[in-house]
Amino acid sequence: MIISVVPTAQQAQDIDFNGKTAVVIDVLRATSVITTALDNGAQEVIPVKTVEQAQSLYAASDPGNTLRGGERNSLKIEGFDLSNSPLEYKRPTVEGKTVILTTTNGTNAINNVNGADEVMLACFRNAAAVVDVIAGRKDVTIVCAGTEGKFSLDDGLCAGLLIELLKQKTEVETDDLGLLLHRFYKESKANLLGALSGCFHLKRLFTLGFYDDIRFCLETSCVKTVPVLREGKIIKYQTS
Amino acid sequence: MIISVVPTAQQAQDIDFNGKTAVVIDVLRATSVITTALDNGAQEVIPVKTVEQAQSLYAASDPGNTLRGGERNSLKIEGFDLSNSPLEYKRPTVEGKTVILTTTNGTNAINNVNGADEVMLACFRNAAAVVDVIAGRKDVTIVCAGTEGKFSLDDGLCAGLLIELLKQKTEVETDDLGLLLHRFYKESKANLLGALSGCFHLKRLFTLGFYDDIRFCLETSCVKTVPVLREGKIIKYQTS
Repeated sequence: MIISVVPTAQQAQDIDFNGKTAVVIDVLRATSVITTALDNGAQEVIPVKTVEQAQSLYAASDPGNTLRGGERNSLKIEGFDLSNSPLEYKRPTVEGKTVILTTTNGTNAINNVNGADEVMLACFRNAAAVVDVIAGRKDVTIVCAGTEGKFSLDDGLCAGLLIELLKQKTEVETDDLGLLLHRFYKESKANLLGALSGCFHLKRLFTLGFYDDIRFCLETSCVKTVPVLREGKIIKYQTS
Repeated sequence: MIISVVPTAQQAQDIDFNGKTAVVIDVLRATSVITTALDNGAQEVIPVKTVEQAQSLYAASDPGNTLRGGERNSLKIEGFDLSNSPLEYKRPTVEGKTVILTTTNGTNAINNVNGADEVMLACFRNAAAVVDVIAGRKDVTIVCAGTEGKFSLDDGLCAGLLIELLKQKTEVETDDLGLLLHRFYKESKANLLGALSGCFHLKRLFTLGFYDDIRFCLETSCVKTVPVLREGKIIKYQTS
């Protein structure tokens, strides 16, 4: 299989995803949040670009069945039900619910790959499960969401992990960024947190006190849920 | 100093370079060619985007004093004087001449950073000389030209070398891509060619038989010439 890696959500806009499977990664924290919400029984997650879109969609929804989640500047949005911490998306809170989510990087990345045949979301937590699903695909593009238009090391490290797991299952041909990130993951796997110590986004979350979030987001292959985009909504992928 | 790294020429289009020094890298082979041409006495190199632009500029120039160089699909352009092999840009050929150059990636990258306060060109061959010039700058953005819109490992490795040399001279703060490429260079410096063995662009040049070009382009810090862009023309940087 062929694996391409795109360094930022913005760069994904220039790519023709027709005929391809896109895998979007935003480790800190959107794809970790979405994976956790669906794993804990949320019915669906609707990614939207702006706070205004989230609010108007919420206004048209059943408030008893809908939650607004997300962040701006890494913090909870005023009036929203949940922040962008995966630790808030526990089963009693999200089970059976629709979550409307808006984040700075991750939800944009998801919306920028809309032309792909399939869009799946990956993070460290569901890496092996994502690989189980995509190992049969021919042409996969991994989109690292990045942080504010720039490549982010946490997403890149997770891309390297996916390539490593895929290589254990099948023959993989990857591009230059894929080669670099695969190498980075192999050298870093014994100490993921250490490898990310200089990462801009991780340092910002540390400064804000989100230690537990970071630890949670770096737990590897601990859940089986693979989020997939279907007509603008993210649901749990069901193996047929 | 602050160093940002941009993975492709295309992504450079989205960046506000105002107040910044841009350093463009296209190791294989545009910035290696331009550095070699100026080092061998060419008066100036004019980077243009299309073959048609090159031909019409040539038609308006003194043919005895002007050379057309560049490539499409890595090969010499029909009717041009020189290809994109730095080995052709020897002193007897280029001394005192104006070179009009059009390449697939590098000349585009140069034209995409036009808003920067200064635009300099780097490659392995002039790395230490470039660092001598830019070590005093506050805000430097390294633009890896890439190959056909994708990140290319050769340019990234050279970016890592620049960061390593700058760190030996001054305090450097870099972004996530800079951290990754610096790490990659440090691990690879004993065997640059080995580190690039999977590189798409390098493999293509190998297939076309350009072994000597590749060896030449990976020679490190062997010339003092720093190309700088001034009003659309690339000339030798003169220390005041």
